Amino acid sequence: MVKIERFTANPIISPEDVKPINDGFEVIGAFNAAVAQYNDETILVLRVAERPVNKDENKILIPVYNCQTKTTQVITESNRDGRFDTSDSRVVKEANVNHDFKYLTSLSYLRLARSTDGVNFSIEDHAFVYPHNEYETYGIEDARCTKIGDKYYLNFSSVSPRGICVELISTSNFESYQHEAIIFNPDNKDVVLFPEKIKQRYYALNRPTVKSTGHNDVWISSSPELHSFGDHHWLFAGSEKGWDNGRVGAGLPPIKTKYGWLEIYHAADKSSRYCMGAMLLDLDDPTKIIARLQNPILEPEAIYEKEGFFGEVVFGCGYVQRGDEITMYYGVADTSVAGCRFSLKEVLKELLGDQIG
Amino acid sequence: MVKIERFTANPIISPEDVKPINDGFEVIGAFNAAVAQYNDETILVLRVAERPVNKDENKILIPVYNCQTKTTQVITESNRDGRFDTSDSRVVKEANVNHDFKYLTSLSYLRLARSTDGVNFSIEDHAFVYPHNEYETYGIEDARCTKIGDKYYLNFSSVSPRGICVELISTSNFESYQHEAIIFNPDNKDVVLFPEKIKQRYYALNRPTVKSTGHNDVWISSSPELHSFGDHHWLFAGSEKGWDNGRVGAGLPPIKTKYGWLEIYHAADKSSRYCMGAMLLDLDDPTKIIARLQNPILEPEAIYEKEGFFGEVVFGCGYVQRGDEITMYYGVADTSVAGCRFSLKEVLKELLGDQIG
Repeated sequence: MVKIERFTANPIISPEDVKPINDGFEVIGAFNAAVAQYNDETILVLRVAERPVNKDENKILIPVYNCQTKTTQVITESNRDGRFDTSDSRVVKEANVNHDFKYLTSLSYLRLARSTDGVNFSIEDHAFVYPHNEYETYGIEDARCTKIGDKYYLNFSSVSPRGICVELISTSNFESYQHEAIIFNPDNKDVVLFPEKIKQRYYALNRPTVKSTGHNDVWISSSPELHSFGDHHWLFAGSEKGWDNGRVGAGLPPIKTKYGWLEIYHAADKSSRYCMGAMLLDLDDPTKIIARLQNPILEPEAIYEKEGFFGEVVFGCGYVQRGDEITMYYGVADTSVAGCRFSLKEVLKELLGDQIG
Repeated sequence: MVKIERFTANPIISPEDVKPINDGFEVIGAFNAAVAQYNDETILVLRVAERPVNKDENKILIPVYNCQTKTTQVITESNRDGRFDTSDSRVVKEANVNHDFKYLTSLSYLRLARSTDGVNFSIEDHAFVYPHNEYETYGIEDARCTKIGDKYYLNFSSVSPRGICVELISTSNFESYQHEAIIFNPDNKDVVLFPEKIKQRYYALNRPTVKSTGHNDVWISSSPELHSFGDHHWLFAGSEKGWDNGRVGAGLPPIKTKYGWLEIYHAADKSSRYCMGAMLLDLDDPTKIIARLQNPILEPEAIYEKEGFFGEVVFGCGYVQRGDEITMYYGVADTSVAGCRFSLKEVLKELLGDQIG
């Protein structure tokens, strides 16, 4: 078993720490943060979810970014005419329509939190990336950050009536950013970029959603220039039975070790209980899996992991490495951010056994 | 109205013209052919669909390519235990599972037919491309062919338990071919490549299938090297009402004209009646639509278009151009191949009006 040392201060960021930036909205989540070490600072690229304050249970209020007017608007629908199913707190589903959702109940965007000790964060009062194009009108979610060369690349899920696609931006200073491209068309999510080229190609794990047949599995794709990905390979699925029989997706950007690329990924069972697992990919050919742990390394156990907007979720999106120590930041219960520390060597020992000295 | 001159010999290739290559199988379709002009020959890259001859209506026979044994096998399931829904002749659907299918009822592969007059074709007795990898175990379908430089590039849908993805191969001689890459991961289909680079990038239309929300629309993506596609843009959808309110997808590889790229695409209404429509994309920036016809240029009218394995379908995948004359080859009723001729200038006049001299 890998020893996981949770921060005693957990959760380190909660919705009540974050002021909404939209009038008449409340912050219901500050979670699933990408992580960057930038100069002396640890930066969390928070997913902040805001929703319109709703005092009328007969109504459904839906926040949507309007590209034409460049404002965040609220659509009002009736909760009484049977057109919508709101049993999942995250989405508004059209009754009798074979789609996952019609609308989202909250609008997410990216907002920075900064820290010099990695535990105490101050949260900026403005958005770092707010929806602004037609692919983002229902929000942007679950960023990952990978430093490649001198630049920090941030990818995230963009949600709109076009589906869920994956967008890439870059920044050198965490003050302004450059739009790079839509790098995966819908439906795809949970993309992590490798931090360097392997045999002349950039690599990314990604999780296409299939409607035709099969499961939502993790694929690996490569790119000559970070805007175009191809040469797609199926990489791994969840299991038939167990903690990962519901869905899988990449979690942290891959960590380079001399034994291979360590990928800490998430998986959920059929009841949507999310855990984090670990696998090792070949250093020279990351389409090959060298080892994979049967059991998760982190499960929802603490009260802040088990209870919240959408409970029983740990969802790691980023880390800071200092020597053998990995500090993982992870979303809990689709609500808050927590942190934990573990030994890289311990995970590798678990994966490879005695060949780790 | 664009005048469409159907071949008097239609359908020019039918299943009864094609001998099965698998023992105990019958050919149920020879249709949806990619088209190449190669030296003096017109080559059709047929989708040939074979299915196991079934004499027991209590059983469902499912053809699957097995990558391990490198053979085509038949899986037998009961038709009596309620596990499967076979109301759509093309697929076997698991009851109560939110996917389009569990299996296909036939296995498709690519087979060449050659002609020197463009009407009378001789069909090769062997496959040109037969399933051989894990992405193709349920078959390969609906090829398109684009000549870029000296090479012919063929892309097609690969179907397997991994979903429907898009594969690219190339050939210089239509005798052997080279595997290039999986260029779109699942679910995607109906990809057409543009015949030349536009501002340093190759372009492709493609049709992701969304499960999250929205419709199955046509996107346009670009590539530096034909293996990796990105910088994805949403391009067009069907209409709310009318002949194209069900689904859309690219049809013929785009035809270069001095007024723009002419795209002859397919669309279906909610009852799955497939027609061919026309639009014009900007020559220098094909993410921009210049003009689009409101009505289809070709609809199922002839008996061979209205009746067959899956009736009321015209589905063009390729063409030959001689001056102003476009000869379009198109699948009919998911069964056979037909041909027709029309004037390029007439289509452009329909699209642009009097500015066409």
